[in-house]
Amino acid sequence: MATEEELKRDEYFMRKALIEAQAAFDEGEIPIGAVVVCKGQIISRAHNLTERLHDVTAHAEMLAITAATNQLGGKYLTDCTLYVTIEPCPMCASACGWAQLSRVVFGASDDKRGFKRYAPKVLHPKAEITNGVLREDCMALMQLFFKKRRD
Amino acid sequence: MATEEELKRDEYFMRKALIEAQAAFDEGEIPIGAVVVCKGQIISRAHNLTERLHDVTAHAEMLAITAATNQLGGKYLTDCTLYVTIEPCPMCASACGWAQLSRVVFGASDDKRGFKRYAPKVLHPKAEITNGVLREDCMALMQLFFKKRRD
Repeated sequence: MATEEELKRDEYFMRKALIEAQAAFDEGEIPIGAVVVCKGQIISRAHNLTERLHDVTAHAEMLAITAATNQLGGKYLTDCTLYVTIEPCPMCASACGWAQLSRVVFGASDDKRGFKRYAPKVLHPKAEITNGVLREDCMALMQLFFKKRRD
Repeated sequence: MATEEELKRDEYFMRKALIEAQAAFDEGEIPIGAVVVCKGQIISRAHNLTERLHDVTAHAEMLAITAATNQLGGKYLTDCTLYVTIEPCPMCASACGWAQLSRVVFGASDDKRGFKRYAPKVLHPKAEITNGVLREDCMALMQLFFKKRRD
């Protein structure tokens, strides 16, 4: 069970991921944002850029992982936590596994496209998963985006 | 059942992927190579660069997909085939799914890390999968690499 301090810390970093998600929203991208945190410090932040880059691999998590490894100068992110507003897809979760991220925190589940359904074992075997941090805020941004797109 | 002409075509493109894998080998990278073919033409080629880029996401397939979408100017690779020397991991297979690649051809299975074991449903639902094209050559390069690394 997380302490109140741990919850506050997770909410703090998820708010930073939400700022990235909002930036994606403002650019007409599916609003998902991510940050990578190492020893209490944000070492990378990114949002979904699939439209701007015409590149399906440009998910927030992939860009954040690449930027984080670049920042640390090595290819592993052991002792790092990824905060992402929506549950990663199998591509991103598998990238988290390759990078050996020790913790993945997401805001809201993605029952249609999320890794838990399609690739439940691709994270590092010892990775800790936390779900539901600022869930309402993370979901609200997605719902608003798809509602706007339908209108 | 593939015709002799289809087999020859697949072997032709797999040889191009093997040239990429050999380039990876020569650079001390895990020797996996890939090409994306659209309407009989190679539109991108890439090999694994995880060591040079310090980036676990820099698998041959990811780089080839990004380059191919860049080449076509859109984010989907419908009507394209990915040839890769070794069975894609869940990250790369999921990227193939997002890109809507209609066919994925690989040389040798990867029973430890391949998508068939960990994420069997992440390709596009209509994607055709072909396994075993130039299997011996694709495997031999991997075996030589890991033998050299152990010695």
